[in-house]
Amino acid sequence: MKIVFKVWLDQDGKAFGDGPYELLKRVEKTNSLHQAAHQMGMAYSKAWGLIRVLEKRLGFPLLERKVGGLSGGGSHITPRTKEFMSNYERFREEVGISIEKIFQKHFGSVQRRKK
Amino acid sequence: MKIVFKVWLDQDGKAFGDGPYELLKRVEKTNSLHQAAHQMGMAYSKAWGLIRVLEKRLGFPLLERKVGGLSGGGSHITPRTKEFMSNYERFREEVGISIEKIFQKHFGSVQRRKK
Repeated sequence: MKIVFKVWLDQDGKAFGDGPYELLKRVEKTNSLHQAAHQMGMAYSKAWGLIRVLEKRLGFPLLERKVGGLSGGGSHITPRTKEFMSNYERFREEVGISIEKIFQKHFGSVQRRKK
Repeated sequence: MKIVFKVWLDQDGKAFGDGPYELLKRVEKTNSLHQAAHQMGMAYSKAWGLIRVLEKRLGFPLLERKVGGLSGGGSHITPRTKEFMSNYERFREEVGISIEKIFQKHFGSVQRRKK
């Protein structure tokens, strides 16, 4: 037996969670929301709409967009987004460790019985 | 901003969580899976099927069924089920407290900014 969980920030609806985190992580690597969305099998329009909704709920812009230019434009995460993502990473890791510990405390004996 | 989470036990699929807990809690009060299912707007056949699946995944019977008799039959939780539900209650409460604490630690300042 194991424990499974989902966790997300809420501000009048889902404001951040694992999905958005993964999307932004890919934007960080590719500097492109187009590529990030494509890698996740997501339509660009859906990814763009998601970012807009999250920005509204979080209250700050997640991406800086450059249109055209020599490099052909692209999307970049901002320093504040980077800081927010780091916070989320630590939050997410601590939640995982904590839930596993509480699970073992209350259901460890069930697991042992099933071995 | 607030934190939202879902948590469940898994053993080759969902083995226990808030939904099953609520269903069993209602069986405990009514001594009837029929009534418990009805109160939750669930078809009896679905509730019965759910209990069967959970029992298989957990590895022990959750309900004792009495058919007919003077009282007209019914379903009762067993002492082991009661113990398991108490474990789950404590587990669930501690997870909630812990996640809230970790959330405040990493996102407390974000909340304050939004006030």
